[in-house]
Amino acid sequence: MHEINYQPIGIVHSNFKNPEGTPIQPKADKGTEAIIEVFAEYAEGLKDLDGFSHIFIVFHLHLAERKSLSVIPFLDTNSHGIFATRSPARPNSIGLSVVELIRISDNRLYIKNIDILDGSPVLDIKPYVPDFDVFKTSKNGWLENNLHKLETQKDDGRFKIK
Amino acid sequence: MHEINYQPIGIVHSNFKNPEGTPIQPKADKGTEAIIEVFAEYAEGLKDLDGFSHIFIVFHLHLAERKSLSVIPFLDTNSHGIFATRSPARPNSIGLSVVELIRISDNRLYIKNIDILDGSPVLDIKPYVPDFDVFKTSKNGWLENNLHKLETQKDDGRFKIK
Repeated sequence: MHEINYQPIGIVHSNFKNPEGTPIQPKADKGTEAIIEVFAEYAEGLKDLDGFSHIFIVFHLHLAERKSLSVIPFLDTNSHGIFATRSPARPNSIGLSVVELIRISDNRLYIKNIDILDGSPVLDIKPYVPDFDVFKTSKNGWLENNLHKLETQKDDGRFKIK
Repeated sequence: MHEINYQPIGIVHSNFKNPEGTPIQPKADKGTEAIIEVFAEYAEGLKDLDGFSHIFIVFHLHLAERKSLSVIPFLDTNSHGIFATRSPARPNSIGLSVVELIRISDNRLYIKNIDILDGSPVLDIKPYVPDFDVFKTSKNGWLENNLHKLETQKDDGRFKIK
Protein backbone atom coordinates (compact mmCIF):
# COMPACT_ATOMS: atom_id res chain seq x y z
CA MET A 1 0.00 0.00 0.00
CA HIS A 2 1.23 3.46 -0.65
CA GLU A 3 2.41 5.99 1.87
CA ILE A 4 -0.10 8.18 3.73
CA ASN A 5 0.71 11.88 3.98
CA TYR A 6 -0.61 14.31 6.59
CA GLN A 7 -0.10 18.00 7.13
CA PRO A 8 0.30 19.18 10.76
CA ILE A 9 -2.66 21.34 11.85
CA GLY A 10 -0.87 22.72 14.89
CA ILE A 11 1.96 22.38 17.36
CA VAL A 12 2.26 21.63 21.09
CA HIS A 13 3.94 24.12 23.41
CA SER A 14 4.77 22.33 26.66
CA ASN A 15 7.35 22.38 29.42
CA PHE A 16 8.47 18.87 28.54
CA LYS A 17 11.47 19.61 26.34
CA ASN A 18 13.02 16.15 26.44
CA PRO A 19 11.67 12.60 26.71
CA GLU A 20 13.60 12.06 29.95
CA GLY A 21 11.34 12.88 32.91
CA THR A 22 8.14 13.31 30.90
CA PRO A 23 5.00 11.56 32.23
CA ILE A 24 4.28 8.38 30.28
CA GLN A 25 0.50 8.96 30.19
CA PRO A 26 -1.78 11.96 30.82
CA LYS A 27 -3.15 10.05 33.84
CA ALA A 28 0.33 10.08 35.37
CA ASP A 29 0.63 13.85 35.14
CA LYS A 30 -0.22 16.14 38.04
CA GLY A 31 -1.79 19.19 36.49
CA THR A 32 0.84 20.40 34.04
CA GLU A 33 -0.57 23.03 31.71
CA ALA A 34 0.33 23.37 28.07
CA ILE A 35 -0.87 25.04 24.91
CA ILE A 36 -1.87 23.68 21.56
CA GLU A 37 -1.44 26.27 18.88
CA VAL A 38 -3.71 25.45 15.97
CA PHE A 39 -2.42 27.05 12.79
CA ALA A 40 -4.54 30.01 11.66
CA GLU A 41 -5.76 28.30 8.50
CA TYR A 42 -7.43 25.57 10.62
CA ALA A 43 -8.87 27.82 13.36
CA GLU A 44 -12.38 27.68 11.89
CA GLY A 45 -12.42 23.95 12.74
CA LEU A 46 -12.32 24.76 16.49
CA LYS A 47 -15.85 26.20 16.63
CA ASP A 48 -17.82 24.64 19.55
CA LEU A 49 -14.86 22.58 20.76
CA ASP A 50 -14.95 24.65 23.96
CA GLY A 51 -18.15 22.80 24.89
CA PHE A 52 -16.11 19.72 25.72
CA SER A 53 -14.04 19.17 28.89
CA HIS A 54 -11.75 16.50 27.43
CA ILE A 55 -10.26 16.07 23.97
CA PHE A 56 -8.18 13.55 22.06
CA ILE A 57 -4.92 14.89 20.67
CA VAL A 58 -3.50 12.83 17.81
CA PHE A 59 0.10 13.90 17.33
CA HIS A 60 3.40 12.95 15.78
CA LEU A 61 6.00 11.55 18.20
CA HIS A 62 8.73 13.56 16.59
CA LEU A 63 11.54 12.43 18.92
CA ALA A 64 10.73 8.71 18.96
CA GLU A 65 12.73 6.14 17.09
CA ARG A 66 10.93 3.64 14.85
CA LYS A 67 13.35 0.79 14.55
CA SER A 68 12.11 -2.11 16.66
CA LEU A 69 8.95 -4.25 16.63
CA SER A 70 9.71 -5.60 20.12
CA VAL A 71 10.28 -3.32 23.08
CA ILE A 72 10.68 -3.37 26.83
CA PRO A 73 8.04 -0.77 27.72
CA PHE A 74 8.34 1.73 30.57
CA LEU A 75 6.01 -0.30 32.82
CA ASP A 76 7.67 -3.71 32.47
CA THR A 77 11.01 -5.47 32.46
CA ASN A 78 9.95 -7.98 29.80
CA SER A 79 9.80 -7.53 26.05
CA HIS A 80 6.46 -7.24 24.20
CA GLY A 81 5.36 -6.64 20.63
CA ILE A 82 5.20 -2.91 19.97
CA PHE A 83 1.44 -3.04 19.20
CA ALA A 84 0.82 -4.60 22.64
CA THR A 85 2.37 -1.51 24.25
CA ARG A 86 1.86 2.25 24.31
CA SER A 87 5.59 2.82 23.79
CA PRO A 88 6.42 5.81 21.53
CA ALA A 89 8.88 3.77 19.43
CA ARG A 90 6.21 2.67 16.94
CA PRO A 91 6.51 1.92 13.19
CA ASN A 92 4.29 4.96 12.61
CA SER A 93 5.07 7.55 15.29
CA ILE A 94 1.45 8.33 16.20
CA GLY A 95 0.76 9.54 19.74
CA LEU A 96 -2.70 9.57 21.27
CA SER A 97 -3.53 11.49 24.45
CA VAL A 98 -6.72 12.55 26.17
CA VAL A 99 -6.20 15.89 27.87
CA GLU A 100 -8.37 18.29 29.83
CA LEU A 101 -9.42 21.36 27.88
CA ILE A 102 -9.40 24.43 30.14
CA ARG A 103 -10.27 27.12 27.60
CA ILE A 104 -9.74 28.25 24.05
CA SER A 105 -8.51 31.70 23.13
CA ASP A 106 -8.51 32.32 19.39
CA ASN A 107 -6.44 29.50 17.96
CA ARG A 108 -4.81 28.51 21.24
CA LEU A 109 -6.07 25.60 23.34
CA TYR A 110 -5.11 25.71 27.01
CA ILE A 111 -4.89 22.13 28.21
CA LYS A 112 -4.04 20.26 31.40
CA ASN A 113 -2.57 16.88 32.36
CA ILE A 114 -0.35 15.98 29.48
CA ASP A 115 2.41 13.64 28.36
CA ILE A 116 3.28 15.45 25.13
CA LEU A 117 6.69 16.86 24.28
CA ASP A 118 7.21 20.47 23.32
CA GLY A 119 7.26 20.94 19.57
CA SER A 120 5.15 17.87 18.73
CA PRO A 121 3.24 18.34 15.47
CA VAL A 122 -0.52 17.95 15.99
CA LEU A 123 -2.39 15.92 13.37
CA ASP A 124 -5.93 15.87 14.69
CA ILE A 125 -8.18 16.93 17.58
CA LYS A 126 -11.40 15.11 18.45
CA PRO A 127 -13.85 15.55 21.32
CA TYR A 128 -13.63 12.81 23.97
CA VAL A 129 -17.13 11.46 24.58
CA PRO A 130 -17.66 8.81 27.29
CA ASP A 131 -20.64 7.35 25.41
CA PHE A 132 -18.30 6.65 22.49
CA ASP A 133 -15.01 6.08 24.25
CA VAL A 134 -15.48 4.16 27.49
CA PHE A 135 -15.28 0.39 27.22
CA LYS A 136 -15.32 -2.30 29.87
CA THR A 137 -12.41 -4.64 29.29
CA SER A 138 -12.19 -8.27 30.35
CA LYS A 139 -8.41 -8.62 29.87
CA ASN A 140 -5.63 -6.05 30.32
CA GLY A 141 -2.69 -8.25 29.30
CA TRP A 142 0.79 -7.72 30.70
CA LEU A 143 -0.26 -4.31 32.03
CA GLU A 144 -2.63 -5.80 34.62
CA ASN A 145 0.12 -6.38 37.17
CA ASN A 146 2.15 -3.31 36.29
CA LEU A 147 -0.34 -0.48 36.50
CA HIS A 148 0.74 0.41 40.03
CA LYS A 149 3.96 1.80 38.52
CA LEU A 150 2.10 4.38 36.44
CA GLU A 151 2.33 7.20 38.97
CA THR A 152 6.05 6.90 39.57
CA GLN A 153 7.54 5.70 36.29
CA LYS A 154 8.70 8.53 34.03
CA ASP A 155 10.05 8.42 30.51
CA ASP A 156 13.75 7.57 30.84
CA GLY A 157 14.69 8.36 27.27
CA ARG A 158 14.99 4.76 26.13
CA PHE A 159 13.00 5.35 22.92
CA LYS A 160 14.55 8.66 21.97
CA ILE A 161 15.69 9.04 18.40
CA LYS A 162 19.46 8.77 18.10
CA MET B 1 5.79 22.47 9.36
CA HIS B 2 6.61 19.76 6.92
CA GLU B 3 4.43 16.87 5.88
CA ILE B 4 4.31 13.70 8.02
CA ASN B 5 4.57 10.40 6.18
CA TYR B 6 3.32 7.04 7.42
CA GLN B 7 3.42 3.57 5.93
CA PRO B 8 0.30 1.39 6.42
CA ILE B 9 1.03 -1.59 8.69
CA GLY B 10 -2.10 -3.48 7.67
CA ILE B 11 -5.54 -3.36 6.09
CA VAL B 12 -9.12 -3.82 7.32
CA HIS B 13 -11.34 -6.49 5.79
CA SER B 14 -14.93 -5.72 6.72
CA ASN B 15 -18.43 -6.10 5.35
CA PHE B 16 -18.88 -2.34 5.20
CA LYS B 17 -17.99 -1.65 1.59
CA ASN B 18 -19.49 1.84 1.37
CA PRO B 19 -19.92 4.71 3.80
CA GLU B 20 -23.71 4.58 3.37
CA GLY B 21 -25.21 2.37 6.09
CA THR B 22 -22.02 1.93 8.11
CA PRO B 23 -22.28 2.42 11.90
CA ILE B 24 -20.96 5.83 12.92
CA GLN B 25 -19.20 4.52 16.05
CA PRO B 26 -18.15 1.06 17.28
CA LYS B 27 -20.68 1.52 20.14
CA ALA B 28 -23.46 1.75 17.57
CA ASP B 29 -22.57 -1.59 16.00
CA LYS B 30 -24.29 -4.82 16.97
CA GLY B 31 -21.61 -7.46 16.84
CA THR B 32 -20.28 -7.20 13.29
CA GLU B 33 -17.06 -9.18 12.89
CA ALA B 34 -14.13 -8.09 10.79
CA ILE B 35 -10.47 -8.87 10.26
CA ILE B 36 -7.39 -6.75 10.47
CA GLU B 37 -4.63 -8.17 8.34
CA VAL B 38 -1.30 -6.94 9.66
CA PHE B 39 1.33 -7.11 6.94
CA ALA B 40 3.86 -9.92 7.47
CA GLU B 41 6.78 -7.58 8.06
CA TYR B 42 5.00 -6.12 11.12
CA ALA B 43 3.65 -9.40 12.57
CA GLU B 44 6.38 -9.53 15.24
CA GLY B 45 4.83 -6.39 16.75
CA LEU B 46 1.66 -8.33 17.66
CA LYS B 47 3.31 -10.47 20.38
CA ASP B 48 1.19 -10.41 23.60
CA LEU B 49 -1.55 -8.27 22.04
CA ASP B 50 -3.89 -11.25 22.52
CA GLY B 51 -3.80 -10.55 26.26
CA PHE B 52 -6.05 -7.52 25.73
CA SER B 53 -9.82 -7.61 25.15
CA HIS B 54 -10.05 -4.18 23.49
CA ILE B 55 -7.70 -2.34 21.16
CA PHE B 56 -7.41 1.05 19.50
CA ILE B 57 -7.24 0.97 15.73
CA VAL B 58 -5.74 4.10 14.18
CA PHE B 59 -6.57 4.05 10.49
CA HIS B 60 -6.76 6.15 7.37
CA LEU B 61 -10.29 7.22 6.34
CA HIS B 62 -9.56 6.48 2.71
CA LEU B 63 -13.02 7.37 1.38
CA ALA B 64 -13.53 10.62 3.32
CA GLU B 65 -13.25 14.04 1.78
CA ARG B 66 -11.07 16.65 3.44
CA LYS B 67 -12.43 19.89 2.11
CA SER B 68 -14.40 21.62 4.88
CA LEU B 69 -13.53 22.90 8.36
CA SER B 70 -17.22 23.18 9.29
CA VAL B 71 -19.58 20.24 9.03
CA ILE B 72 -23.09 19.15 9.94
CA PRO B 73 -22.21 15.89 11.73
CA PHE B 74 -24.33 12.73 11.60
CA LEU B 75 -25.79 13.38 15.06
CA ASP B 76 -26.91 16.97 14.61
CA THR B 77 -28.65 19.33 12.22
CA ASN B 78 -26.40 22.29 13.08
CA SER B 79 -22.93 23.05 11.82
CA HIS B 80 -19.84 22.67 14.06
CA GLY B 81 -16.10 23.03 13.66
CA ILE B 82 -14.64 19.77 12.35
CA PHE B 83 -12.45 19.33 15.46
CA ALA B 84 -15.57 19.51 17.66
CA THR B 85 -16.97 16.47 15.83
CA ARG B 86 -15.99 12.89 15.07
CA SER B 87 -16.95 13.33 11.41
CA PRO B 88 -14.66 11.51 8.95
CA ALA B 89 -14.26 14.60 6.73
CA ARG B 90 -11.17 15.83 8.63
CA PRO B 91 -8.16 17.81 7.35
CA ASN B 92 -6.06 14.73 8.14
CA SER B 93 -8.19 11.64 7.50
CA ILE B 94 -7.33 9.86 10.75
CA GLY B 95 -9.90 7.43 12.13
CA LEU B 96 -9.83 6.15 15.71
CA SER B 97 -11.89 3.18 16.87
CA VAL B 98 -11.86 0.96 19.92
CA VAL B 99 -12.86 -2.57 18.93
CA GLU B 100 -13.18 -5.87 20.74
CA LEU B 101 -10.37 -8.30 20.00
CA ILE B 102 -11.70 -11.85 19.74
CA ARG B 103 -8.52 -13.69 18.77
CA ILE B 104 -5.36 -13.45 16.76
CA SER B 105 -4.30 -16.07 14.24
CA ASP B 106 -0.87 -15.43 12.79
CA ASN B 107 -1.05 -11.92 11.40
CA ARG B 108 -4.86 -11.72 11.37
CA LEU B 109 -6.81 -10.00 14.14
CA TYR B 110 -10.44 -11.09 14.48
CA ILE B 111 -12.37 -8.14 15.85
CA LYS B 112 -15.95 -7.27 16.77
CA ASN B 113 -18.13 -4.16 16.91
CA ILE B 114 -16.70 -1.90 14.27
CA ASP B 115 -17.34 1.21 12.21
CA ILE B 116 -14.45 0.78 9.78
CA LEU B 117 -14.81 0.51 6.02
CA ASP B 118 -13.40 -2.39 4.06
CA GLY B 119 -9.98 -1.59 2.63
CA SER B 120 -9.04 1.05 5.21
CA PRO B 121 -5.26 1.26 5.66
CA VAL B 122 -4.25 0.62 9.29
CA LEU B 123 -1.61 2.95 10.72
CA ASP B 124 -1.32 1.80 14.32
CA ILE B 125 -2.70 -0.59 16.91
CA LYS B 126 -2.55 0.11 20.65
CA PRO B 127 -3.98 -1.77 23.64
CA TYR B 128 -7.01 -0.05 25.21
CA VAL B 129 -6.40 0.22 28.95
CA PRO B 130 -9.15 1.67 31.18
CA ASP B 131 -6.56 2.98 33.66
CA PHE B 132 -5.10 5.08 30.83
CA ASP B 133 -8.15 5.74 28.70
CA VAL B 134 -11.22 6.35 30.83
CA PHE B 135 -11.88 9.96 31.80
CA LYS B 136 -14.80 11.56 33.58
CA THR B 137 -15.99 14.54 31.60
CA SER B 138 -17.81 17.58 32.94
CA LYS B 139 -19.01 18.87 29.54
CA ASN B 140 -20.02 16.98 26.40
CA GLY B 141 -20.78 19.94 24.19
CA TRP B 142 -23.34 19.77 21.41
CA LEU B 143 -23.36 15.97 21.66
CA GLU B 144 -25.00 15.98 25.10
CA ASN B 145 -28.51 16.28 23.72
CA ASN B 146 -27.92 14.18 20.62
CA LEU B 147 -26.46 10.95 21.99
CA HIS B 148 -29.85 9.23 21.90
CA LYS B 149 -29.54 9.14 18.10
CA LEU B 150 -26.38 7.04 18.21
CA GLU B 151 -28.10 3.66 17.95
CA THR B 152 -30.21 4.55 14.94
CA GLN B 153 -28.20 7.06 12.91
CA LYS B 154 -26.06 5.45 10.22
CA ASP B 155 -23.53 6.99 7.88
CA ASP B 156 -25.53 8.46 5.00
CA GLY B 157 -22.58 9.10 2.72
CA ARG B 158 -22.49 12.85 3.24
CA PHE B 159 -18.70 12.92 3.74
CA LYS B 160 -17.77 10.51 0.97
CA ILE B 161 -15.00 11.58 -1.36
CA LYS B 162 -16.33 12.73 -4.73
